[in-house]
Amino acid sequence: MEQILKLIEGDLKKLEVSIDQLVSTKVGFIKEIVNYIVKSGGKRIRPILVMLSSKLCEYTGEKHITYSAIIEFIHTSTLLHDDVVDNAQTRRGASTANTIWGNEASVLVGDFLYTKSFELMAEGDNFEIIKTMAHTTKQLSEGEILELLKTSDINTTEEDYFEIIRNKTAVLFSVACEIGAILGNVNEEKRLSLKEYGHNLGMAFQLTDDMLDYNSYDEVLGKKVGTDLKEGKITLPLISAVNLSTEKEKALVRKVVEKQSITLRDFERVSAIIKKYDGIRYTSDKAMDYTSAAKDCLSVFNPSPFKDALLRLPEYMQQRKT
Amino acid sequence: MEQILKLIEGDLKKLEVSIDQLVSTKVGFIKEIVNYIVKSGGKRIRPILVMLSSKLCEYTGEKHITYSAIIEFIHTSTLLHDDVVDNAQTRRGASTANTIWGNEASVLVGDFLYTKSFELMAEGDNFEIIKTMAHTTKQLSEGEILELLKTSDINTTEEDYFEIIRNKTAVLFSVACEIGAILGNVNEEKRLSLKEYGHNLGMAFQLTDDMLDYNSYDEVLGKKVGTDLKEGKITLPLISAVNLSTEKEKALVRKVVEKQSITLRDFERVSAIIKKYDGIRYTSDKAMDYTSAAKDCLSVFNPSPFKDALLRLPEYMQQRKT
Repeated sequence: MEQILKLIEGDLKKLEVSIDQLVSTKVGFIKEIVNYIVKSGGKRIRPILVMLSSKLCEYTGEKHITYSAIIEFIHTSTLLHDDVVDNAQTRRGASTANTIWGNEASVLVGDFLYTKSFELMAEGDNFEIIKTMAHTTKQLSEGEILELLKTSDINTTEEDYFEIIRNKTAVLFSVACEIGAILGNVNEEKRLSLKEYGHNLGMAFQLTDDMLDYNSYDEVLGKKVGTDLKEGKITLPLISAVNLSTEKEKALVRKVVEKQSITLRDFERVSAIIKKYDGIRYTSDKAMDYTSAAKDCLSVFNPSPFKDALLRLPEYMQQRKT
Repeated sequence: MEQILKLIEGDLKKLEVSIDQLVSTKVGFIKEIVNYIVKSGGKRIRPILVMLSSKLCEYTGEKHITYSAIIEFIHTSTLLHDDVVDNAQTRRGASTANTIWGNEASVLVGDFLYTKSFELMAEGDNFEIIKTMAHTTKQLSEGEILELLKTSDINTTEEDYFEIIRNKTAVLFSVACEIGAILGNVNEEKRLSLKEYGHNLGMAFQLTDDMLDYNSYDEVLGKKVGTDLKEGKITLPLISAVNLSTEKEKALVRKVVEKQSITLRDFERVSAIIKKYDGIRYTSDKAMDYTSAAKDCLSVFNPSPFKDALLRLPEYMQQRKT
């Protein structure tokens, strides 16, 4: 991963400067919250995708920095609203914004980041990007609502799950890559390939995330697991296990996901069922399929250090432990 | 008012059809909430402004219907988020969406309406309108945050108050009128005049609203008053009275606005102070100033039924009792 970051070192530095400048507002309080959440150790995966894709498409301007910031703002905005919806207390090991400043502030500063992003896009004067981004953010919002509707619903199907993660995660990865293609002004085939690459990468990313939420406990000491189960999020490790489990086991899972608050014992009992039916392996296999599909998408591009980086990225993401 | 509505009767009907079509989404639940709130007796003031302004500027197409719907969606989106922020139980005499479906749904469906609006604008292919709207929605969000920051703050100044209502209310009235000018492709002078008209009208509208929240009790039986005081919103009737009041009275007001929940007695005591220092009259005078400023803005337009309607609109709004 370090090698990849080295390739776009300059751009990543410019991004941080740009984020600081772009959230400038007469309301100081907004900056305080935005700084807190935007600078709280996010991995900048989506901006990295904008940067690598732009370079892969031989874009030589500077606009990709602003679009990287916009993509990160929209992502941050969804985090702020998610934490309100999930009533989350911590994110990345730190207190969530809603815990510190209240739900009101999280809702409104999330709105600020959404609307600020659209203002920046409008100023960017690229109609193609505006259209694509507007459609994507609407899909994001549909994904969040679908997820809310399926909360604590033990009958959530694999199909529902893939629909949710496509909308809530993969579309933003996908558009990040597509922006690079639009800026680089490549042909339709390359644009669609990069878009598809981002989609597959996003799917693999979310699958891995959902897997780690059940699995990283043993490997990375202190990593908080079981958050999804606690929040009633029915993810693939659980869905695939429930599909194979006995009625008795199903009843146990149902009882746990419908509980207001769960105990470590609850988590362990559900984890045992997932283990019994190989739910982690099932999810990991799916992630691997998407990872390999992502790499295949890049075949239309000529060799370059940026292509190499994009080829290596999916595996780095899938192999991460946290 | 009926005469005004008669003028744009056809457009208003088309708007309702359009609202139904435009919120079509694969997620049925979204439509349920949107229908509930968009159809819960809103006065459609902002769409009316888009329609009258478009006609005043001799626009003959059909795009103003979609933009009217977009403006109403953005307004609805802010209502959904406002009710979460204010923890409001009722709006227009009915239960708020957050009371029925929960804060989570209100936050996410609000996001859906925001993002859907931008998607519709992007499809509208009018770059000028996108730019103006993007800037406006950002201002709206800043206005909401400013208001939140001044909640229960007895030191809120008249300047703060005008800054808040300009951002949270007047900018959307203003852009509604400006869209008409952009669609009608009028010259810069007319566009700015309509924009300014909308601004003044919006200021007058919010001032009247804030006045009624203290004053309509005696006149319209059953009208819920005192909501602003209850929610810690420091508005002009109160600010202007506090500016003139004794230290003892100030201390009383401070105690009430900082309370978690207020009694009828609290409301009556604060109302008495407002009455003593003529806070309602002060606010009403300001509203009248804006009303007359709004009308002045229309002098650059030739006589027409639409000009007449826009000239009469401010007074109708200012004279309303609810």
